[in-house]
Amino acid sequence: MLENESFRWLAGPVAPLDGAARQRAAERQGQLTKPAGSLGRLEELALLLAAMQGTDKPGLTKAGIVVFAGDHGVVEENISAFPREVTVEMIRNFASGGAAISVLARRLKAELEVVNLGTVADPGPLPGVVAVKLGCGTANFVAGPAMTEAQLAGALRAGYDSVERMISRGAQLFIGGEMGIGNTTAASALACAYLGEKEEILAGPGTGLDPAGVSRKIEVLGRALARHRPALAAISGSTPDGNRCAAVGAKDFEIPGAEEVAARWAREIMRRLGGFEIAALAGAYLRCAQRGLPVLIDGFISSVGALAARRLKPQVADWFIFSHTSAEPGHRRVLAAMEARPLLDLGMRLGEGSGAATAFPLLQLACSLHGEMATFEEALVSRQVG
Amino acid sequence: MLENESFRWLAGPVAPLDGAARQRAAERQGQLTKPAGSLGRLEELALLLAAMQGTDKPGLTKAGIVVFAGDHGVVEENISAFPREVTVEMIRNFASGGAAISVLARRLKAELEVVNLGTVADPGPLPGVVAVKLGCGTANFVAGPAMTEAQLAGALRAGYDSVERMISRGAQLFIGGEMGIGNTTAASALACAYLGEKEEILAGPGTGLDPAGVSRKIEVLGRALARHRPALAAISGSTPDGNRCAAVGAKDFEIPGAEEVAARWAREIMRRLGGFEIAALAGAYLRCAQRGLPVLIDGFISSVGALAARRLKPQVADWFIFSHTSAEPGHRRVLAAMEARPLLDLGMRLGEGSGAATAFPLLQLACSLHGEMATFEEALVSRQVG
Repeated sequence: MLENESFRWLAGPVAPLDGAARQRAAERQGQLTKPAGSLGRLEELALLLAAMQGTDKPGLTKAGIVVFAGDHGVVEENISAFPREVTVEMIRNFASGGAAISVLARRLKAELEVVNLGTVADPGPLPGVVAVKLGCGTANFVAGPAMTEAQLAGALRAGYDSVERMISRGAQLFIGGEMGIGNTTAASALACAYLGEKEEILAGPGTGLDPAGVSRKIEVLGRALARHRPALAAISGSTPDGNRCAAVGAKDFEIPGAEEVAARWAREIMRRLGGFEIAALAGAYLRCAQRGLPVLIDGFISSVGALAARRLKPQVADWFIFSHTSAEPGHRRVLAAMEARPLLDLGMRLGEGSGAATAFPLLQLACSLHGEMATFEEALVSRQVG
Repeated sequence: MLENESFRWLAGPVAPLDGAARQRAAERQGQLTKPAGSLGRLEELALLLAAMQGTDKPGLTKAGIVVFAGDHGVVEENISAFPREVTVEMIRNFASGGAAISVLARRLKAELEVVNLGTVADPGPLPGVVAVKLGCGTANFVAGPAMTEAQLAGALRAGYDSVERMISRGAQLFIGGEMGIGNTTAASALACAYLGEKEEILAGPGTGLDPAGVSRKIEVLGRALARHRPALAAISGSTPDGNRCAAVGAKDFEIPGAEEVAARWAREIMRRLGGFEIAALAGAYLRCAQRGLPVLIDGFISSVGALAARRLKPQVADWFIFSHTSAEPGHRRVLAAMEARPLLDLGMRLGEGSGAATAFPLLQLACSLHGEMATFEEALVSRQVG
């Protein structure tokens, strides 16, 4: 049992995939005028979307893109190539349509919303920006927990609410993006804790640190993880050096109560080491899975949000499609932990949901091919010999 | 000097890239509101297209897709998983809009044309299909040359003509596709000859051969290459076992006359081992480079067409963008020979231009991002520290 009412929704059931629709789609796919399998992963995507949408002819007209933004106390430790002011400046840039994700959303005719969860400066009301003020950014997690329980609950709920708004605006697929100077440091800290992995593996240059900066980031992460390890170990029941729960996945729930313990542990990691926008991503992804809305996951930070959502509720993974492999080196480790095979590998590392938005047309083309190609019978084309 | 008037156009100059436009585009790119390099290969694409289009803000509204089709005498050797009739049946399917490339062209609002260069059966007039009857397919190249000189000249010229038509229809980028039962065998034979590579490396399942079929294909390729090697060696001046000209690339033209000898050798390989549609692809790519029209190369067979075009005129490579890595195993070898880094790797292996069409939206998004994002100054966003 989750002990706190404001977290109760996290335990709600995840929507099932429609296996019968998938089967009907596979039968149709076998009749289309092409050698079997010759459209490669576009065929897999069509079948997966069939199972997600519950129809043998899936379609994707409208994507809903939500960019979550927030500031990070850990920037005090000098771990970013850009000054903290950029978070708010970029929120203004999203609102005025000049950011990468603004351009992509226009091109894709997608719904775009920005959710400001708490920045050091208040940008005031802006068009297309929802203000959910959880604080002036998180606290510096080297010194203590990044968030209070109430802030964590508010961030997760902000993700939930954004999904509900996007569903009401007709979105057929959810893309979460993020903006927050310092958030690769928070994402690296979270990934270290969720995966029981060393900080050297998960820290990288982010927006553009030089090697000395990356070393500093690793050192900061080491201090933060040492600071929070005992409290996290007390939940998971492991020793302060171990990470027993890190290996808890969908298959490891034989122990009664383990799922609840794992979820509490996952939440506490997010509260201590996370960021408002990363928690909101996790909440949004979880809500998408509950509502049966396909999710196209962006890069490193979004994938850490996806990892957090899986630790909260392993079944959510059914609803995830991974869009791209980021140039941020830690991303490969996070993807491997989820057995994810992203569609693109273009060296992108901007965030904002930009990699996912770039991959969205591939999903649309997969649906069009599946739905509109002629069958062998319709086109009077001969089948394979033997 | 090319000895034959009908091949003379092949030696015409390739359009230069606009280095100044590229430089202006790079300056703009450095001012856009994102960490430098964070859009990865989308940034490279924008700069390359700037150099191709001669403008600091390139744009891609309309692609021109031409699917070249033809039959292959070598199907007598039982090297395809599909019967020969499928070439004509698929031409009808293109015309009626049911093929994969038909669907993709509609989705992308691209111009689509099919050029039938010669099939065993004559499908008669069809909407959107240009008939260029070079013969009832090629001859079986195990027994002799696949084409006559006149057929080769006609196929190359058909590629030229298709590019001219697409330019007049407003295409800003050219995608060549192909259809022809048996054409992975011809493409493998060509790649073996151009690269001096073994047939085991370049033969694969094509549309769906089983392992016994692939073995048979390798054996057929071995016989064909043995049959033609002496005549090819006589042109290149190497021994029958060597492949001196295979290594001739853009940098290897110190020897006077070497370029002409290499071009004659490249043409003779195409005549002896090629297919009408592969020769037409090579002609089209070469004409694109002469006219300064960017080319988005599809999969295995199209890449062999690109390789042939490079052997005819090394400078054409400036105008090539590689769209995807095919599941056909020989493709990686051909790509490596051209130092190509395709954008997608989705396990596709259909041909028709389908992989290139699938990648086209990435190029469009790269242009939109480059042209429409705000600069740091416009958006009042702070720059990187230090």
